[in-house]
Amino acid sequence: MPLILGLDPGLATTGWGVIAAEGNRLSHIANGQIKTDRAAPLAERLVALDAALTDLILRHKPEGAAIEEVFVNVNPQSTLKLGQARGVCLLAAARSGCVVGEYAARLVKKAIVGTGAAEKAQVHAMVARLLPGAKISGADAADALAVAITHAHHMASARRIP
Amino acid sequence: MPLILGLDPGLATTGWGVIAAEGNRLSHIANGQIKTDRAAPLAERLVALDAALTDLILRHKPEGAAIEEVFVNVNPQSTLKLGQARGVCLLAAARSGCVVGEYAARLVKKAIVGTGAAEKAQVHAMVARLLPGAKISGADAADALAVAITHAHHMASARRIP
Repeated sequence: MPLILGLDPGLATTGWGVIAAEGNRLSHIANGQIKTDRAAPLAERLVALDAALTDLILRHKPEGAAIEEVFVNVNPQSTLKLGQARGVCLLAAARSGCVVGEYAARLVKKAIVGTGAAEKAQVHAMVARLLPGAKISGADAADALAVAITHAHHMASARRIP
Repeated sequence: MPLILGLDPGLATTGWGVIAAEGNRLSHIANGQIKTDRAAPLAERLVALDAALTDLILRHKPEGAAIEEVFVNVNPQSTLKLGQARGVCLLAAARSGCVVGEYAARLVKKAIVGTGAAEKAQVHAMVARLLPGAKISGADAADALAVAITHAHHMASARRIP
């Protein structure tokens, strides 16, 4: 079954989740959170993030990757930090040959809960229900699994269009 | 003589410049601008940027890299785009083993022109004077050379401190 890697980028914590998807049949493969050392220089943190992503892509060999379109923070310095981490995530996925899908937060909520106005907690509860048995590492890993599921739904619908 | 790579990141155009620096003696090695296809998906543009940077780092083998601390745009979407390109630049340099220095724009202006309030045009004119014979590819390449020169000055001062 084709594997999909979902990513929720962040400089301090990047959530990731790998699911297997065949049409609407989903199963959980793995998830986790990559943390970088807040005390380290920025460039080193990005190298650590890239190394961890490259390692998990080599381990799972996903054929697709999905990443949330970003919430643009009111604080421009936070947006810049997030952008730097997100750039590394997009690069690591695309460099490995994954097709990378980007999904707006509203679309992820709609795909998982059925409404774009859903709360985070509802999204996380539905992710746990859609992937029974998955031990989810934290909120960022749950967000990563949510965007992976969204990508799977999107692919399944795309295949139904002749 | 140790080489320094200066980078002025941007998603559409990343300026780069390589200089040789021995104490306060500087010489121009190469400069250029990496452009990515505005019509291509974001992830592919970042892959193209990374490939071009990796290529030029392998070609010149700089031991240090320098990058301007970023002007946070009033437009958060622009800040995010810039952040993504900047993350890839920092990663490419640090992954190759370069020591990466970050310098505020004011500091670059002060190092090149002597005042943090200098105009862009003054900076570019001084870069051309400091690196005689250099054929500069454009404004982004000039900015990249400026930050490389700043890094060289910074290293030379650091060495003077016992």
